[in-house]
Amino acid sequence: MSDCFEIEDVDLLGRVGRLKTRRGVVETPALAPVVDPSRNIVPPSEIVDAGFKLLMTNAYLIRKRLGELGVELGVHSILGVSTPVMTDSGAYQLMEYGEVEVAPLEIVEYQVKLGSDIGVILDIPTRHGSPREVVEREVEETLRRAREALGVERGGMLLVGPVQGGLYLDIVARAARELSGMDFEIYGVGGPVQLMVNYSYPELVRLVMTAKMNLPPGKPVHLFGAGNPHMLALAVAMGVDLFDSASYALYARDGRYMTPHGVYRLEELEDLPCECPVCSKMEARELRELPSQERVYRLALHNLHVLRAELRRIRNAVREGRLWELVEQRARSHPALLQALREFRRYVAYVERHHYVTKGVVSGRFYYDLLSRERPETYRHAVRLRERYTPPPADLLVLALETDVKPFSRFGWIAELAKALAADREAGERAHVAVLTGAYGVVPLELDSVYPLSQYESAIDLDDPLTAKAVASDAAWYVAGARSYAAVLVLYEKGEATARAVVERLRRLGYPAYARRFTSVEDAVAFAKLILRTLARSRCPL
Amino acid sequence: MSDCFEIEDVDLLGRVGRLKTRRGVVETPALAPVVDPSRNIVPPSEIVDAGFKLLMTNAYLIRKRLGELGVELGVHSILGVSTPVMTDSGAYQLMEYGEVEVAPLEIVEYQVKLGSDIGVILDIPTRHGSPREVVEREVEETLRRAREALGVERGGMLLVGPVQGGLYLDIVARAARELSGMDFEIYGVGGPVQLMVNYSYPELVRLVMTAKMNLPPGKPVHLFGAGNPHMLALAVAMGVDLFDSASYALYARDGRYMTPHGVYRLEELEDLPCECPVCSKMEARELRELPSQERVYRLALHNLHVLRAELRRIRNAVREGRLWELVEQRARSHPALLQALREFRRYVAYVERHHYVTKGVVSGRFYYDLLSRERPETYRHAVRLRERYTPPPADLLVLALETDVKPFSRFGWIAELAKALAADREAGERAHVAVLTGAYGVVPLELDSVYPLSQYESAIDLDDPLTAKAVASDAAWYVAGARSYAAVLVLYEKGEATARAVVERLRRLGYPAYARRFTSVEDAVAFAKLILRTLARSRCPL
Repeated sequence: MSDCFEIEDVDLLGRVGRLKTRRGVVETPALAPVVDPSRNIVPPSEIVDAGFKLLMTNAYLIRKRLGELGVELGVHSILGVSTPVMTDSGAYQLMEYGEVEVAPLEIVEYQVKLGSDIGVILDIPTRHGSPREVVEREVEETLRRAREALGVERGGMLLVGPVQGGLYLDIVARAARELSGMDFEIYGVGGPVQLMVNYSYPELVRLVMTAKMNLPPGKPVHLFGAGNPHMLALAVAMGVDLFDSASYALYARDGRYMTPHGVYRLEELEDLPCECPVCSKMEARELRELPSQERVYRLALHNLHVLRAELRRIRNAVREGRLWELVEQRARSHPALLQALREFRRYVAYVERHHYVTKGVVSGRFYYDLLSRERPETYRHAVRLRERYTPPPADLLVLALETDVKPFSRFGWIAELAKALAADREAGERAHVAVLTGAYGVVPLELDSVYPLSQYESAIDLDDPLTAKAVASDAAWYVAGARSYAAVLVLYEKGEATARAVVERLRRLGYPAYARRFTSVEDAVAFAKLILRTLARSRCPL
Repeated sequence: MSDCFEIEDVDLLGRVGRLKTRRGVVETPALAPVVDPSRNIVPPSEIVDAGFKLLMTNAYLIRKRLGELGVELGVHSILGVSTPVMTDSGAYQLMEYGEVEVAPLEIVEYQVKLGSDIGVILDIPTRHGSPREVVEREVEETLRRAREALGVERGGMLLVGPVQGGLYLDIVARAARELSGMDFEIYGVGGPVQLMVNYSYPELVRLVMTAKMNLPPGKPVHLFGAGNPHMLALAVAMGVDLFDSASYALYARDGRYMTPHGVYRLEELEDLPCECPVCSKMEARELRELPSQERVYRLALHNLHVLRAELRRIRNAVREGRLWELVEQRARSHPALLQALREFRRYVAYVERHHYVTKGVVSGRFYYDLLSRERPETYRHAVRLRERYTPPPADLLVLALETDVKPFSRFGWIAELAKALAADREAGERAHVAVLTGAYGVVPLELDSVYPLSQYESAIDLDDPLTAKAVASDAAWYVAGARSYAAVLVLYEKGEATARAVVERLRRLGYPAYARRFTSVEDAVAFAKLILRTLARSRCPL
């Protein structure tokens, strides 16, 4: 059954995939709206019509309210849908009320009998602020229940094994490793609700990444209770494939109106900033003045449309290789999300190993500032330059600061300069040209047609002092690693700050280095030859 | 007629307003979709139903095709709508084909006879790359036509006076000043189409800001031909109130699918990342496989929904005082937009003078990084601190680095420390407490309840070296300006880099300055007293 998940596309740790259940395929990333088994604000069939192919409901509540009748009806008739249904086990009630009236094994069996397509074991969610010993004990018990649950005859129901441990990351890591040894079809990351309510997104990143790095990479991951649309892209970037949330309904009851970039109070909106079928048919005032039940229903429907569209935006971004860019955009919807992205970039080495090189849809990359340089593409280029690239032996490295026209080896003055240098009798074999870019650092000219080294648009400002410092350190690292250069010439049109920083840095390392504003190919070649001649003289034994 | 525009809310230079035409009020910012008078992809009445209360059509083409029959029918019957209609004069055709078959005065009179609600004079759009002398001559002619057009009896038709001059900013400024002396109801900024097609947004900022700063601030401003949704927020931030564009239809014909953050090719989309009535009812594949005419129609309708929702998002942002934040988000949809925002911040002094202090809806401000510090709020705080604030005389300035809890004067250790210092017999009158924040620089504790000095969430990282430098320079500027302090104590929990940078900077200015990690109120008070005693000793005549 480990082949129930098929990965179609990867970007960062995010995947576009297909989860096969016995009632059909669920395209992931997917969010399963949580529906109340007996009275839901939006009828489950309308949720399905709004584009959600997986619903989540609570088997524990069905058992409590309907008992054996629930089994006779089956969860699909109870909800009135024929699409896949996931059921929860009462773990949330356990966390809220401290106990539940069912044995762990019993509720797994009950889910099977209900005809659930995806079941969850009765794990013990880690409470925020629980002492370490308590969490250790609870996680041990969750693991015991996990092992036990796998013994149940499930007749095709997929089962979720939840990783607990909260902010005790060593416990999270151990729980994830233990669960990896068991054959769950889906792994869950549990207990982040409080983190999400408080916008503690940097902590959420540490929790999810710790779990993810210790789970089998090919298996789908479910994040429990994540329902604010502005954080879904980041969660997918961390490798989350499935979400469940009642947020669309809870927010609606509370008069809260979702948008992809944050949640508003309906009463504060004078215009509905949304294209959805609800909002394109009425004005904010009209929506506010509806009778309460009708208003909550429409607001919930709106929230569902927003969630659905955001998931599609994420899927497209994964296919295009632009998930990082979407996360950067969403990081501007709340400062806590930017802090979370900064936290996520600490995991770049792990992310890079799982991140695809090229995509079906090949498109240019967008770079904005130093944070964009933390993309795995930049990291990967640095690693490859170090591990796989040997520059041709040369006395002089000519570092040209990037121009707007790309690829550099074909257009603009950098291309002309390289041609002129190569054709020159004196400089031809002694000078090597590389481009210094804000996005990737040093790009040897012969590599610049390797994707995506010249397929990008950048707003990284080489005149910004901190950028200059970062790029100078790339240049120094490259020159020091290459070992063969006796001198360096930095040519620039824009980005004087970077040119100067590179020269300063290299001189401190003992390299003769010179910055020169580019005026003409002739001037640049002449200056390069001047340096080469000076080098020749200084080498002569006196 | 100068009272035809009513401003309800202001943010940056953006306004939410009401433009009164003889056929009803248009809420601004508004975009007038351009419709072909005889055959439009989407019937004009459907465009109105989709939420656009102002349409734009071409009086020149109507005159050419229908002549006197056009006048008999009137523009509203021709389009089949009763909402306000704006007409263009053939200036676009003039730019495209070099000449038009109508005299400037004639086409203004024709627009009046058509029953147009907003007319445009036949100006001469500046072509990209025209030599200076040509542009000067053309702008003179446009100004002549403007003067002449105002003599026409218009019977209630509002008239647009377009500013031309392209990238010759001095010509733009002069044209705007000249036009300001004439009594147009609306001012236009002309000729930016090529800039927008090439994503030359930084140049667009220079053009629009130059025009804006030389136009009467109370009059509405129309930007011709701006139709990419991702740049509307920035344009509104520069004070643009009206747009017209055929982009929804042109893009649709070309298979291009708008989103608020950029334009996709429909053929590349596997999921439709949108909530609109078109996209929530069909899949990308279904849309692609529709017969051509039907597909273009639906795509155009989708594009209209996206434009409409973006304008509403912008209106909400203005009302909330969050337009800067929306522009920051959109700046992450293309590097050229981030470059444009960096260009826009150069005008902060002008923007600040027109930017409201408080809003109807008061909400917290979001700060992300150094770019966010370019908001007028930060600039305004600096100006007020310099011009209106006199710190209480004190020997020791205690600079506490900001904490997460706010207002600082009421919660957390900063509040406790201030209380303890004030209560101390020795330190009470000799120490003054201020908070050092990433968002606003120095905030004297007694000011921190002034809006919005403690109503913000910030991801500005005080451990980032460039931020440290920027904040240190705020601190130095404050200390140097206050003149009364003999020493400075910097207390921090997070942000050691900033604390060290402040101390280093102040010492270079000759102030005894000390950084100390905050551990307890007692320790901080004791350390403050130690500094005060040392000061006392060093002052004693030896």
